[in-house]
Amino acid sequence: MGKYQHIQEEAYEANLQLPKLGLVMFTFGNVSAADRDLGVFAIKPSGVPYNKLNPGKMVIIDFEGEEVKGKMRPSSDTKTHAVLYKHWTKIGGISHTHSIYATAWAQSLRDIPIFGTTHADHTTVDVPCAPPMDDKMVLGDYEYGTGFQIMNCLKEKNMSYEEVEMILVGNHAPFTWGKTAEKAVYNSGVLESIAQMAWLTEQINPNAARLKESLIRKHYQRKHGPESYYGQ
Amino acid sequence: MGKYQHIQEEAYEANLQLPKLGLVMFTFGNVSAADRDLGVFAIKPSGVPYNKLNPGKMVIIDFEGEEVKGKMRPSSDTKTHAVLYKHWTKIGGISHTHSIYATAWAQSLRDIPIFGTTHADHTTVDVPCAPPMDDKMVLGDYEYGTGFQIMNCLKEKNMSYEEVEMILVGNHAPFTWGKTAEKAVYNSGVLESIAQMAWLTEQINPNAARLKESLIRKHYQRKHGPESYYGQ
Amino acid sequence: MGKYQHIQEEAYEANLQLPKLGLVMFTFGNVSAADRDLGVFAIKPSGVPYNKLNPGKMVIIDFEGEEVKGKMRPSSDTKTHAVLYKHWTKIGGISHTHSIYATAWAQSLRDIPIFGTTHADHTTVDVPCAPPMDDKMVLGDYEYGTGFQIMNCLKEKNMSYEEVEMILVGNHAPFTWGKTAEKAVYNSGVLESIAQMAWLTEQINPNAARLKESLIRKHYQRKHGPESYYGQ
Amino acid sequence: MGKYQHIQEEAYEANLQLPKLGLVMFTFGNVSAADRDLGVFAIKPSGVPYNKLNPGKMVIIDFEGEEVKGKMRPSSDTKTHAVLYKHWTKIGGISHTHSIYATAWAQSLRDIPIFGTTHADHTTVDVPCAPPMDDKMVLGDYEYGTGFQIMNCLKEKNMSYEEVEMILVGNHAPFTWGKTAEKAVYNSGVLESIAQMAWLTEQINPNAARLKESLIRKHYQRKHGPESYYGQ
Repeated sequence: MGKYQHIQEEAYEANLQLPKLGLVMFTFGNVSAADRDLGVFAIKPSGVPYNKLNPGKMVIIDFEGEEVKGKMRPSSDTKTHAVLYKHWTKIGGISHTHSIYATAWAQSLRDIPIFGTTHADHTTVDVPCAPPMDDKMVLGDYEYGTGFQIMNCLKEKNMSYEEVEMILVGNHAPFTWGKTAEKAVYNSGVLESIAQMAWLTEQINPNAARLKESLIRKHYQRKHGPESYYGQ
Repeated sequence: MGKYQHIQEEAYEANLQLPKLGLVMFTFGNVSAADRDLGVFAIKPSGVPYNKLNPGKMVIIDFEGEEVKGKMRPSSDTKTHAVLYKHWTKIGGISHTHSIYATAWAQSLRDIPIFGTTHADHTTVDVPCAPPMDDKMVLGDYEYGTGFQIMNCLKEKNMSYEEVEMILVGNHAPFTWGKTAEKAVYNSGVLESIAQMAWLTEQINPNAARLKESLIRKHYQRKHGPESYYGQ
Repeated sequence: MGKYQHIQEEAYEANLQLPKLGLVMFTFGNVSAADRDLGVFAIKPSGVPYNKLNPGKMVIIDFEGEEVKGKMRPSSDTKTHAVLYKHWTKIGGISHTHSIYATAWAQSLRDIPIFGTTHADHTTVDVPCAPPMDDKMVLGDYEYGTGFQIMNCLKEKNMSYEEVEMILVGNHAPFTWGKTAEKAVYNSGVLESIAQMAWLTEQINPNAARLKESLIRKHYQRKHGPESYYGQ
Repeated sequence: MGKYQHIQEEAYEANLQLPKLGLVMFTFGNVSAADRDLGVFAIKPSGVPYNKLNPGKMVIIDFEGEEVKGKMRPSSDTKTHAVLYKHWTKIGGISHTHSIYATAWAQSLRDIPIFGTTHADHTTVDVPCAPPMDDKMVLGDYEYGTGFQIMNCLKEKNMSYEEVEMILVGNHAPFTWGKTAEKAVYNSGVLESIAQMAWLTEQINPNAARLKESLIRKHYQRKHGPESYYGQ
């Protein structure tokens, strides 16, 4: 058993969740799982259908984006993962999909307004939409730049990656993260639901108001923080 | 066999229906089943995925919201269930989901208009949307308050919980109930269909009118009351 | 083997198609199959879930709506089926659902415009929406009246039930029919697709125009009539 | 083993993907697979449900549209396939569906705007919508004419069939193609996703702008051309 097998298995299982949750078609998504002590993460190989994966096909990459071990080419989004792991030292998993509703919001270049408690159960702010990169960044090291685009967006909005575990990359699609790969995928699923509900809310009531602050705080704290009483 | 096993099994089976009917993702819903003679109900443990449940994991709670028996922490919405069981003496099951379309109506703070016979087969009124609690209630005993918010909404609209077995809690999500847990879940499914159809109806015809009174009465009475001729 | 077994089996199989095609939830639909020589039809029993059906549970009814044989109460819509079988002497099956998109059009009291060849492959006209009955008819023999409402709508629009095998009953839901129960269910599925596409077409282009006459004729004749060259 | 068996199997497998991917209901779609050396293609028989197909039922047709071998009548759209194979000498597969979202755009007579990278990963232009044929062509050799309508639309827009592998036929439905039948079906799936996302994008932001040129180029080149680094 290799020393990377645990994160290869974690990444493998998390990738398989994407089609099961209806978040991807064909190969349109990738999940990675990091081991902070080893300083590496395991990520899906590029363009391989989910039903052709196995743990051994997960590619091992370090936080500079360099390949450490693997027989296949890693996901084309690998450098975005690497940048985030390098700078956000408390995350252990990242998930990227082109799920329909979240991607539509990203294409609309709009933050997803916080309209209800389903949203507040997971984060206290509108889901941010990072602006598209300027042309120089696009033509430069694109995937690397995407990572910085994500980090800068949170920074400018004064948000913490530990509290806001999801973002839309403008004109592109969502990225989510968390302490584990499983949690990152969970956040991808939550985000897709939130995105669909927010779209419908505006359809049903074009003047729908954001959730009031007391309910945002209440629901977030039910699930998070020292006073939480959700879960086991 | 324990003396609560029958309601644990009833609650277990009813909870499993939620993902089967497409009404929940992850752990976003909970169903309870009551025994009126014993003065208790069985409810889903908090944050446990549906495929990890078994009847023995259902927690036993009395109508004051106190835990009677159980190894796990009960659903964070437990007190809302308790309040309703205490005051509505003829219900035997309660279901709470964040199903997409019903939740979008709740987030829109709108009652669901009665547009057709699918709706009238189940209730004769617009599905009410209870207003969000005031901040004092939110910061107080929140889940307890949610129960009162539901009861007060029906009371103010002069509706009976025996005739109207579904409600939207504004900015939150739907609650439904019935004589059994199975019926409560059935009502969650009906409500989701009604919610989707009502949204589409307004999309197709922004001037769509409410169903006329004679059709409301006719369809409701086909299924309910002394003259009903639906079912076996 | 009873003399009605063939239509009981035909009706049973056709009813099972409804949930398989995503056209019904719970018990919200019913299909019947007629034997013209015997002057009877077999229909789903009322309120029984599809997974609890078997051929022997299908109830035998004559074209006056009287029960001929059966242990269970027939569908509450039975008289509507009887009226149509009695007056439309060339049909052998009828299907009724509350499928989401077709029902939303019915609730909108609008005919479904013929926007494309998917529609024209099956009928050359907008899918008609019969107006709701007047109050006197609603309070009278309601299901019987529904049958006449359907027939009168086609008559007033100068349409033949052999060419137009689907209708929306205003504020209620769709009915479809055909030479067999299987064809009637097929038409329920086609109608649901047409209804969804027409809604989306108006969303994407609020000024979308009806399909031009030459394309309507061409596509209808590919599949129907003496010059057809579709199928085996 | 017959000399056409390889394309019959390729066409058979590709046709089975259509219902699996949710792109067809009943028999509403057909895929073909060509052998350039033999100068023929294998295509689905007309009106046969996907679960009744086998490789031997695929009909062999030459590029003039003449039947070479087969026991069943080929798809009614066969001549459209033949025309495209004859003139586009580098394609090996064609797929035609009436998938819901793409067909709604076709019925709307609108090109699908390129709003994001999911689109740009596959093509650099708005997905073109060919205008409906004039009445003379409709009444003439219709399916043959459909092929020319497709080719002329690309020609007029100065697009290459090697770079743009998908089109909407106005008022009808999408056609897609590629080097293999499998790739053609893949493109049908991609198009359906793009169509759904573009509709939602306009719903969420009616002023949504097309993707900027630098991002279009970047994403297309990640997957295509000499500098591509996607896949294995």
